[in-house]
Amino acid sequence: MTTLCEFPTFESDWLKPERVVLVGASSKLGSVGQVIGANLQSGSRAFKLQTVNPQQIDWSGTTHFNSLSAIPMGPGLGVVAIPAQGVSEAIATLGKKGIRYAVVISAGLERGSELGNKMLNAARDTGVRLIGPNCLGLILPHHRLNASFARSMPAAGDLALLSQSGAIATAMLEWAEPREVGFSAVVSVGDMAQTGMGELIEIFAQDAETRAILIYLEGLNDAQRFMEAARKTTLTKPVIVLKAGRSQMAGRAALSHTGALAGSWDVYRAAFREAGIVAVDTLEDMFDVASLLSCYPEGAKENLAIITNGGGAGILAVDAMARTGARLADLSDKTVNELNAFLPTVWSRANPIDIIGDADASRYSMTIETVLADPGVDALLVMNCPTGLLKPGEAAQATVDSVERARKGGSDKPVFGCWLGDANFAAASQQLNESRIPIFSTPSDAVRGFSALLQIRRASAKASSSEVEVSNPKTMAQAQALMQSVKNDGRRILSEIEAKTLLAEFGIPVVETRLIACEDDFQEACAAIKPPYALKIVSPDITHKSDFGGVALGLSNASAVRRAAEAMKKHISDAFPDARLDGFAIQPMVARKSAHELFAGLAQDTTFGPIVLFGAGGTAIEVIADKAIGLPPVSSRQAQEMIAATRISRQLAGYRHVPQADLVAITKVLEALSRLAVTLPEIAELDVNPLLADADGVVALDARVILR
Amino acid sequence: MTTLCEFPTFESDWLKPERVVLVGASSKLGSVGQVIGANLQSGSRAFKLQTVNPQQIDWSGTTHFNSLSAIPMGPGLGVVAIPAQGVSEAIATLGKKGIRYAVVISAGLERGSELGNKMLNAARDTGVRLIGPNCLGLILPHHRLNASFARSMPAAGDLALLSQSGAIATAMLEWAEPREVGFSAVVSVGDMAQTGMGELIEIFAQDAETRAILIYLEGLNDAQRFMEAARKTTLTKPVIVLKAGRSQMAGRAALSHTGALAGSWDVYRAAFREAGIVAVDTLEDMFDVASLLSCYPEGAKENLAIITNGGGAGILAVDAMARTGARLADLSDKTVNELNAFLPTVWSRANPIDIIGDADASRYSMTIETVLADPGVDALLVMNCPTGLLKPGEAAQATVDSVERARKGGSDKPVFGCWLGDANFAAASQQLNESRIPIFSTPSDAVRGFSALLQIRRASAKASSSEVEVSNPKTMAQAQALMQSVKNDGRRILSEIEAKTLLAEFGIPVVETRLIACEDDFQEACAAIKPPYALKIVSPDITHKSDFGGVALGLSNASAVRRAAEAMKKHISDAFPDARLDGFAIQPMVARKSAHELFAGLAQDTTFGPIVLFGAGGTAIEVIADKAIGLPPVSSRQAQEMIAATRISRQLAGYRHVPQADLVAITKVLEALSRLAVTLPEIAELDVNPLLADADGVVALDARVILR
Repeated sequence: MTTLCEFPTFESDWLKPERVVLVGASSKLGSVGQVIGANLQSGSRAFKLQTVNPQQIDWSGTTHFNSLSAIPMGPGLGVVAIPAQGVSEAIATLGKKGIRYAVVISAGLERGSELGNKMLNAARDTGVRLIGPNCLGLILPHHRLNASFARSMPAAGDLALLSQSGAIATAMLEWAEPREVGFSAVVSVGDMAQTGMGELIEIFAQDAETRAILIYLEGLNDAQRFMEAARKTTLTKPVIVLKAGRSQMAGRAALSHTGALAGSWDVYRAAFREAGIVAVDTLEDMFDVASLLSCYPEGAKENLAIITNGGGAGILAVDAMARTGARLADLSDKTVNELNAFLPTVWSRANPIDIIGDADASRYSMTIETVLADPGVDALLVMNCPTGLLKPGEAAQATVDSVERARKGGSDKPVFGCWLGDANFAAASQQLNESRIPIFSTPSDAVRGFSALLQIRRASAKASSSEVEVSNPKTMAQAQALMQSVKNDGRRILSEIEAKTLLAEFGIPVVETRLIACEDDFQEACAAIKPPYALKIVSPDITHKSDFGGVALGLSNASAVRRAAEAMKKHISDAFPDARLDGFAIQPMVARKSAHELFAGLAQDTTFGPIVLFGAGGTAIEVIADKAIGLPPVSSRQAQEMIAATRISRQLAGYRHVPQADLVAITKVLEALSRLAVTLPEIAELDVNPLLADADGVVALDARVILR
Repeated sequence: MTTLCEFPTFESDWLKPERVVLVGASSKLGSVGQVIGANLQSGSRAFKLQTVNPQQIDWSGTTHFNSLSAIPMGPGLGVVAIPAQGVSEAIATLGKKGIRYAVVISAGLERGSELGNKMLNAARDTGVRLIGPNCLGLILPHHRLNASFARSMPAAGDLALLSQSGAIATAMLEWAEPREVGFSAVVSVGDMAQTGMGELIEIFAQDAETRAILIYLEGLNDAQRFMEAARKTTLTKPVIVLKAGRSQMAGRAALSHTGALAGSWDVYRAAFREAGIVAVDTLEDMFDVASLLSCYPEGAKENLAIITNGGGAGILAVDAMARTGARLADLSDKTVNELNAFLPTVWSRANPIDIIGDADASRYSMTIETVLADPGVDALLVMNCPTGLLKPGEAAQATVDSVERARKGGSDKPVFGCWLGDANFAAASQQLNESRIPIFSTPSDAVRGFSALLQIRRASAKASSSEVEVSNPKTMAQAQALMQSVKNDGRRILSEIEAKTLLAEFGIPVVETRLIACEDDFQEACAAIKPPYALKIVSPDITHKSDFGGVALGLSNASAVRRAAEAMKKHISDAFPDARLDGFAIQPMVARKSAHELFAGLAQDTTFGPIVLFGAGGTAIEVIADKAIGLPPVSSRQAQEMIAATRISRQLAGYRHVPQADLVAITKVLEALSRLAVTLPEIAELDVNPLLADADGVVALDARVILR
């Protein structure tokens, strides 16, 4: 990873450059250099445009230079759209001329390639901050600056769009235009050679024009900075991410695309949750959220009322709510009575409020005003199905009029529309958009958008009051000494007894386990532990012991232990003559009748580093596949959320005659693992399986620790 | 339920009536009677239009009557749009005049209401077949007949749309119009007083103009007929259903809407699967499927190639594929070499085929033709992201040209498009639609549509070669005798021993169990069974025995059994003095080390009748909530599919040292339960829990049977 601090940092003036130098301006119609030039030209005169090309170009209002070395000294933004070979020299010259920011459109400058490295060196040597390469460009609508080859300038607004794909950015812009969704900035980040998502989040967190940040992401190369920036930003501004490349097959497609490292979606999802980021699933979701956010950046509260002239549409909306976790508002008796007074007798008398297919404009108006006045209603979805009885546009006008009256009366409840049918939608959308009432064309789009508003509110309400316990110095010293002794032995795998010692030092209850290294130890070990016994081989070469006949259970006395040990020894030396045998681990049989077999552990993610895992355990762990992920530091609230995210949590909560398991003890194990991960970064993998849990607490029966 | 055979059945001429009588025609602009009248008037002269209203109406080309009794005798279609009070008389008069089919638009004639019953009686007495009441109407585009208050006449085509919501039908029609999707019929079924979905499926299965049937469904009132019709129809024509009211809260909304009985979505889903119906989740899905079906009614094969000028869009498409189960085609070496010859060197060299953001029209054309020629490619998705480098419409024209060339060359591979960005989509859609290339605006829409095509092909390929074993007469006689003896006792619940006897008669292995009814039985029972023993109370008043201290395990001899029985007896008489105690059941402890605890059973669904259940068992069954549903008759293939649909099937398949469980034995249990359900319809509930399963077979440890 490039060390970012070697480059100059962004300063507040960079979003309002006084001049723009387009290197590679072209007069060839349809070429990148021409399209960017035309886009820049069409902007305001808030900046001077200077074009560079050996061939003469005469565009009105711009100054042309045949050579980059001829441009005057001074600050500004460089836009580089020339073949890859010339980029590093262009950057160096721009830097020498006082330009501190450059957007590199050119492709063929991959990370680690010779040309890519030359470009980075030139930037570092001359103090230029780079965006790209291999990107669509940069658009700053408030400054009327379009340094991109997108088709047109989006409206100025308060959403910052950061995209790892130029194509997705252009699709988003085209979608936004007719819906009056505006942007504070559009940044196509390309290969992120120097400027990554984390740094851009920092910038737009501080930008007063930006009220929310939308990100199209394939993979991060600055996960730590991203997480730190996101955690802080989401306290005040929503951050919405569409993460592409979730499946393994898509991951491969992403690799061949921008060369981004696409880690596991499960880990990304855990990271987003912990940073308060709202993750959306599809481009449509991103559109829906953008549309709602541009009107209601604070998000929304839970209780949704639905007014519809078609019962079926209302039912589909409720189906979508059940999928997304929104809640149907209960109408007050007062509201129902008021509606009774003017709705036909067959109306639904409940939410969704079916005002019947023959509803006219005034029935819409009266219903909307009555429902918005109900204190139990937090937000309102107005639906309209096309019928031959109501002219297109009439219901929309009624909605706009009544919502504006309610707003004048002080209502700030989010209202949004769903107009089914193309022509019906088309006839209504301009009116609703102009009144800042987001409009959707299907019930599921509308509800999905609303559910994102709920998530946004929840994410910002959650804040990060996470109190994370730190390891005490004595624990740390002992653990580090243990690690050192393992390393001194030239080993990477801790013995079971070492692993349990380590867990115990961090406060995780373990079953008492003794090593029987030689013949003499049997009697002593058995005397110290209460029968019946469990016996396991200790071998650095065999980890899945039970698969290899290396476990014997329910041994009632010392001589049974000895016989079992002999049998195992013989079996192992027959079946695996090369396996080293360091002895046997002996422990009491743990008889906990209704205890659950859990799993808890640590692993290393290629993108995010250490992660804490929790789920159902036992020998079937892989096929049961019931796990939750947390990123250290894991607070007790996060640990509780991890537990709740598993299927086995329903069993842990107790059922029939099985009492609730000791959930506090489980959260303490997860917090301890988080401390372990932070204290001992050399741990590559740590498995506690099974971790037995019942109403009386938890105990680790087996543990495995592997160092990097 | 109304007995359908009392009414006249549909005959082939009903879809082409020679006259239409509109009862309730009105000249009041915007009224239902006026809108329907105008719609009927705008049709062809393939039918005579006669209007009825006490007030005079003068519409060109129609004949008006001031009274229904004045209309001439003869066949035809009646359309009734008058207040509910007058409907039964209108139907009676229509029937007497020789009209055999009537669409009742009017509401307020609910099932079981006085007016509703009067209407049904009138129809029965005079031999009129009813559609509705409370519906949007009927549209037959090939006959140019629009007897509805929808805004306009859809194009004639080969999709039949049956909708339980008029609003959803109108939304669908508006959506279809600009996309050139045509219909053979649109039937708004309303309250389905007489004509239900099953009968309509039968009609359109036989209609030569119809190639696929789309259904918006809230709840069935003719489940058996629906299933029979669908099972047959899906062998030759796709049936696509959007089932609304899936969640409990939506179910309530549906009840207040059309009064339809909305059963459990889980059971509907199982029923759809077994009938070869493709279930879609949202209205968008329905649109997507309709769009693809109107071009490719045969469905599609698995291997999809994707061509895109934006890598990000390609990745999002692959993400969507992973969610829906489609497969990325592997490009042949020949194809890759041919593409290498003309694509820029940075192209993806794999599927998705990223032809890079600066792709022009000829690059699209050459790539499409090369990829369509690859025998490993079954279908093609062409994607386009807007850029400033390509004019809107250019990529669409290139796609149309090359696909048409390929089709002329004999290719019948489905091709569909995804044009991102509103303006980009708008510029392309007409061209693509005209060439019968379905076009979508987002990657997930496009892929979801394709995945429905896959399902359609799979559903029709599956056919119903289900060989279902029937119960032998001896088994049936014995089972019926057992039922009779229980009924003679005045009981509804079988004793555990009776229940196990019943299972054993149907071939389900059960653990040997004896009843200890009195003191003398202990010694004899223990002598007959191998220790250790399990002992359970037998009481008609206690079903969850283990919750009430009514189970003792691992008893090693007869005296331990006796002591346990004494203790239980005392405990029960202290804690539940009113519970009757019939004795004790004794059985051997079943020691199967790696056996899985399963559940299998029968229940009654309010809509579909008996259902077979299977899943993970044990005492935590409710919280584990891992179950699959099948509708009798369950074939062995269906039983296998039920097993595969559970999470526990992954454990049953074997893992690490646990061998695969005897899946054949499990399927036999499910088939046996299906036979039980068919043979003994008086069974309300049957639970086998746990059903132990391992590599050596299955055995039922406990069973419970409740009669209706």
